[in-house]
Amino acid sequence: MFTVNKDYLALRGSYLFSGIASRVRDYKNSNPDKKVISLGIGDVTRPLTPVVIKALHEAVESQGQEETFKGYAPDLGYVFLRDTIAEKDFKSRGCEVESDEIFVSDGAKSDSGNIQEIFGRDNIIAVTDPVYPVYVDSNVMAGRTGEYDEKTDRWSKVIYLPCTAGNNFSPALPERTPDIIYICSPNNPTGSALSRHELQKWVDYANEHHSVIIFDAAYEAYISEEDIPHSIYECEGARTCAIEIRSFSKNAGFTGVRLGYTVVPKDLKSADGVGLYSLWKRRHGTKFNGAPYIQQWAGCAVYSEEGQKEIRENVGYYMENARLIRESLKDMGYEVYGGVNAPYIWLKTPDNMTSWEFFDVLLKKAGVVGTPGSGFGPSGEHYFRLTAFGKHEDTKEAVKRIQSI
Amino acid sequence: MFTVNKDYLALRGSYLFSGIASRVRDYKNSNPDKKVISLGIGDVTRPLTPVVIKALHEAVESQGQEETFKGYAPDLGYVFLRDTIAEKDFKSRGCEVESDEIFVSDGAKSDSGNIQEIFGRDNIIAVTDPVYPVYVDSNVMAGRTGEYDEKTDRWSKVIYLPCTAGNNFSPALPERTPDIIYICSPNNPTGSALSRHELQKWVDYANEHHSVIIFDAAYEAYISEEDIPHSIYECEGARTCAIEIRSFSKNAGFTGVRLGYTVVPKDLKSADGVGLYSLWKRRHGTKFNGAPYIQQWAGCAVYSEEGQKEIRENVGYYMENARLIRESLKDMGYEVYGGVNAPYIWLKTPDNMTSWEFFDVLLKKAGVVGTPGSGFGPSGEHYFRLTAFGKHEDTKEAVKRIQSI
Repeated sequence: MFTVNKDYLALRGSYLFSGIASRVRDYKNSNPDKKVISLGIGDVTRPLTPVVIKALHEAVESQGQEETFKGYAPDLGYVFLRDTIAEKDFKSRGCEVESDEIFVSDGAKSDSGNIQEIFGRDNIIAVTDPVYPVYVDSNVMAGRTGEYDEKTDRWSKVIYLPCTAGNNFSPALPERTPDIIYICSPNNPTGSALSRHELQKWVDYANEHHSVIIFDAAYEAYISEEDIPHSIYECEGARTCAIEIRSFSKNAGFTGVRLGYTVVPKDLKSADGVGLYSLWKRRHGTKFNGAPYIQQWAGCAVYSEEGQKEIRENVGYYMENARLIRESLKDMGYEVYGGVNAPYIWLKTPDNMTSWEFFDVLLKKAGVVGTPGSGFGPSGEHYFRLTAFGKHEDTKEAVKRIQSI
Repeated sequence: MFTVNKDYLALRGSYLFSGIASRVRDYKNSNPDKKVISLGIGDVTRPLTPVVIKALHEAVESQGQEETFKGYAPDLGYVFLRDTIAEKDFKSRGCEVESDEIFVSDGAKSDSGNIQEIFGRDNIIAVTDPVYPVYVDSNVMAGRTGEYDEKTDRWSKVIYLPCTAGNNFSPALPERTPDIIYICSPNNPTGSALSRHELQKWVDYANEHHSVIIFDAAYEAYISEEDIPHSIYECEGARTCAIEIRSFSKNAGFTGVRLGYTVVPKDLKSADGVGLYSLWKRRHGTKFNGAPYIQQWAGCAVYSEEGQKEIRENVGYYMENARLIRESLKDMGYEVYGGVNAPYIWLKTPDNMTSWEFFDVLLKKAGVVGTPGSGFGPSGEHYFRLTAFGKHEDTKEAVKRIQSI
């Protein structure tokens, strides 16, 4: 008689996005003539760039010829891509990351969800709060999070690191020592980013306590300020305490193409000397069959001079949206954060409204959809997320409507 | 202080393929002029077919246009593909499988490895022996398999179902009742396939004992005989006991393209009434971000009339290799199995040689590489696998060389 994984049953329903969808549906039914504009999505809207399209076509063509056809890819990724990543994302920034420490995958979400599997079940995780839900959910599914308390919206074994305007969204070191620390910078949802000095503090803490940092750098391409590290390996000592997860989704628009990678340095070992590198390699080899050649070839094209130029243009397009939202809302008197090193604007709800109250106001009075901050964790309450991934025209129109509330 | 997943440390090294590689390397060093022919690979060699290439180009093109660009795919797959699969792979065969019971993924290997995660850690698995290593390894990594015994090459908690010439490679029902039963038919590595009657026996057994069958049908396209079911849902009662995993790798040559799917019927529930459907859906939603649009569009094209014709041609190409190997070896006096409903030929080693001894004879006397049966499990000892995925010329040459031993 088979039994199910009971830890799955502890998962909370994904109330956030279903809650948003049902409210938008109700609004549309009552207001059939009004166009709803979404500044809630985390998905890109710009098409793939010419360099990427050209590379995809090339790769497809080669898969139709006997001489150039490629079957199973190497488990960990093609050398041409891993070498390029090592050079362009790391060595060029002075980071010591070798080509064979790079594990190419079908995306940062898979890696974020799967990485916890190489750790023992007794490890205590810490997450910044608010946070991208996958970090916590994947640990719930592995039985690491204890009991859920409806009242506080917290798991008993998880260490929450509040990030609010009060600490400038830079979390304080925890009182209890976590084993695994998830850090996303630039951050989804707060749109803030840790400075080199602040990140170094975490690297030092992790090395001192033999904790491991899972560093999610999916939004690295949006960094505009000098002092913000693009990789955790810019910090001294990160090779012995940090895993870094990267994505092609938000820089090159690969949300529907699927490509990402994770760095596990060979120097990163448990107290009893087991290298995480070999464990992650084994997971890749056993439960994954390599990212597609077509995608890897296109990913490599992203690093060409022309590819980089196109990407900067796309990032610039979104960041102009971010600037517009940020500046306009400031002018209207909102307390606004983010939007400088990240495509997310994080605002304090006015008049101490709850996140959901403000959601309703924005929807009903402006026909604009955003994301209630409380959906990302307890410290997100009284905050609200707007994203810069919309089209210019829609973003402008949304801002105009918010002005007229 | 973080700790690692100790269950990973119990994994056996992948001695099989590294062992093969090192022997081939030694042989090549000693015989630099001789061309080694591999009939050991499980990867396809024919390029993608014109219909697939055309669809891939179409999809790529649409990803470069603002009007048709698609970002994140639906977690479970595009409706256009799921509807097509439901119709062409199931309803057309009289199987009751609905479109929304189909979970599109990046391939059967990921699904085979991940599916165990939705079950409790205390479940006992049964595998046919010999077997595709991923079923056992992914359960070792989850702590379900007990202790490994070097002498018997067996895990203490795993139920092995021997498949040998003695039982015509159709496993007998086990004495101890397993909770999860892995069945691959047509089978890798034995090349045999279960008849409808034999598979029905397992479905009845699973329903009676409330076990679940993980049915791997990756080689379904190679079935040539009437009486062999293409899907487990051709058996009565399978909807309450079976999950089916399918691949585009071996029919459409997608080994490097990456696309597969898994069927979890909504009727499949644990004894206490938890639907596996909702658990697998949650896993897909949390640790996976959808298969790429480009791949799904190409997968859909595989089902077109022209696509099916091309696939039958490719399958025919490989099966002509299978016929040649099978018939020629029979003529030489070998005891040969498989190769009728599967691209694998499974032969008994002559003169009671061990699998590795025969490997050495074949390599040294004929310059031909195959796979020692013992690498797939204890009951694979004294057997040897040859695959039909080579090029015609190479396969012919290999057969000629074996004849001259």
